[in-house]
Amino acid sequence: MKVDGKPMRSIWVEPDGNAVGIIDQTKLPHRFETLRLTSLAEAAHAIRSMQTRGAPLIGATAAYGIALALRADPSDTALEQAYATLLATRPTAINLRWALDEMMAAVRNQPREARVAAAFRRAGEIADEDVAINAAIGRHGLALIEAIAATKPKGERVNVLTHCNAGWLATVDWGTATAPIYMAHDKGIPVHVWVDETRPRNQGAALTAWELGHHGVPHTVIPDNTGGHLMQHGRVDLAIVGTDRVTAQGDVCNKIGTYLKALAARDNDVPFYVALPSPTIDFTVDDGVAEIPIEERSAEEVTRMTGRTEDGRTETIEVVAPGSPVANYGFDVTPARLVTGLITERGVLPATREGLAAAFPERASSGRG
Amino acid sequence: MKVDGKPMRSIWVEPDGNAVGIIDQTKLPHRFETLRLTSLAEAAHAIRSMQTRGAPLIGATAAYGIALALRADPSDTALEQAYATLLATRPTAINLRWALDEMMAAVRNQPREARVAAAFRRAGEIADEDVAINAAIGRHGLALIEAIAATKPKGERVNVLTHCNAGWLATVDWGTATAPIYMAHDKGIPVHVWVDETRPRNQGAALTAWELGHHGVPHTVIPDNTGGHLMQHGRVDLAIVGTDRVTAQGDVCNKIGTYLKALAARDNDVPFYVALPSPTIDFTVDDGVAEIPIEERSAEEVTRMTGRTEDGRTETIEVVAPGSPVANYGFDVTPARLVTGLITERGVLPATREGLAAAFPERASSGRG
Repeated sequence: MKVDGKPMRSIWVEPDGNAVGIIDQTKLPHRFETLRLTSLAEAAHAIRSMQTRGAPLIGATAAYGIALALRADPSDTALEQAYATLLATRPTAINLRWALDEMMAAVRNQPREARVAAAFRRAGEIADEDVAINAAIGRHGLALIEAIAATKPKGERVNVLTHCNAGWLATVDWGTATAPIYMAHDKGIPVHVWVDETRPRNQGAALTAWELGHHGVPHTVIPDNTGGHLMQHGRVDLAIVGTDRVTAQGDVCNKIGTYLKALAARDNDVPFYVALPSPTIDFTVDDGVAEIPIEERSAEEVTRMTGRTEDGRTETIEVVAPGSPVANYGFDVTPARLVTGLITERGVLPATREGLAAAFPERASSGRG
Repeated sequence: MKVDGKPMRSIWVEPDGNAVGIIDQTKLPHRFETLRLTSLAEAAHAIRSMQTRGAPLIGATAAYGIALALRADPSDTALEQAYATLLATRPTAINLRWALDEMMAAVRNQPREARVAAAFRRAGEIADEDVAINAAIGRHGLALIEAIAATKPKGERVNVLTHCNAGWLATVDWGTATAPIYMAHDKGIPVHVWVDETRPRNQGAALTAWELGHHGVPHTVIPDNTGGHLMQHGRVDLAIVGTDRVTAQGDVCNKIGTYLKALAARDNDVPFYVALPSPTIDFTVDDGVAEIPIEERSAEEVTRMTGRTEDGRTETIEVVAPGSPVANYGFDVTPARLVTGLITERGVLPATREGLAAAFPERASSGRG
């Protein structure tokens, strides 16, 4: 999507072909800086430090990480070590593993001298496939927005609520939850987005707001506490969020707080959609609430906030009573019963075992059944 | 309750009898400072700037504000001007008006020379009545906590979730939502409190955590997004929140985000209680969602955060993408159907028109019926 009026992706091969470019997302929204990754270590660091983030983008970054590792050493040992190093950066990210497995399949049987080229080729395909998947998600979701727009007086806004950042910054392009929004906007449908701040890391206020603003999509940042009130007053037409993992029965693991918005949507008859590329579906897990372990993250993400002072300095401040303990759960699980539909590259599916299995029969059969 | 081990209230008459002392709550949690209010202007400023805050404490501060105004000028004109000035500080605070009306009734018919003494006397009574009301709320709520503790193995914690600050800092002492918690703790019941951060003003992380910490009550600060996840996993035994206004049919207007927690409580069969002194009941309003106008507050409360840097400076930082619009609704309304009970000074009542009218017949009849 656009930054300062120019189209770009979130990851690319540098013109010299020897490095991979990314946006340093830890600097957003106050500074737009790009980084040049030249080694496995730099790629792993980019994922670990969240310079690059979002399930699909992590997958693409890890894929390029394999290519960068092989450029330094194309041996089997180096390949296996790169696989292990990258997998350990975010052990809960399901399509990180998927992307790494794809890379292994693409290079393992190649002679050493062909591995670097094969790796860059496959990583590029993974990136392009992500763009194609998100564009397909966008087209399917666009139809939902168009249907709502058709029920309104011409020119009246369609209000979409989203949580966290499932935007193009979290993918290679388009985003997942944002793909239908960008397509609707580009098509001239007057769409407006309520952007949840998304404590504690503020990915909504920092990243989603930044990318919507740069692309010119009308939006309003709200504290996470606000969505229920807006829905009670008819000011949300639909919610679209992303997800880190969807189970075989359609439970949705996503950024902490998603479940609360889904409850409010249900209580106010607001459709609640989840946009996802199919690698996000984990057919080996059924009951998301009971089975998915929720990552506990550091207290400092809650107690400290970093931002820009009025005179342009970056400062970190403490915002919690000194000495008070903090709990920081990264995700929650929204039960399938609260999900109106799953927007995938193969269409909008019911959040049910049958719906998922029918759309992805080749993968559902490999689940635990 | 206790600060640094010593019992104190949130408002008091200074030993010389000429001024009123308060805690400067804008400095919490990083600095504990008290202020000496000597005039109407200082009292009004303390309310407006939220140095003093919370519906009951605002009422008491306004009451003392009348006394301070009369000390400078005991005329009818000054009295009426003080009333108008103080009422305008927080026009939506229902027991601000109640306290001011009480003060008018107490001093209006007094000769001028008796007005200051009468005003300080009545303000003192209003403060003492608040303490007595909250102590009664505490006793009724304590029974609920004791009942839950009785179902658990001895020594196992009772987990209470609360939102915003309905603590002793928001009242004269005990607090409303916290009164049952302090009484349970003081009685040796192992109570633990999940403290919602409460964006955008962070009153939970800053104030509730501070006061629980000083009194020695075990607690954990959580982002507002977290409560639903904890309830799904059986880690919340009951929720107790405060309120700014309860309608005749039992709808609860409270800090934005309360509604989302009530939805999660209902979805997980967690009892959801609202603690309130009866002046908070507004018998002139029925349908809270339809009838209560929700205050929109400044965007800067969302875009900026103030806190302490590691080296002890106070800094304000921007935490939202530059240029992104922000909406900041102060409150939301939790429909009565989601409220398990209203903990009042007259007992735990059902959140229904009949429940409220039966407990407060003398006030219900003055509603619009």
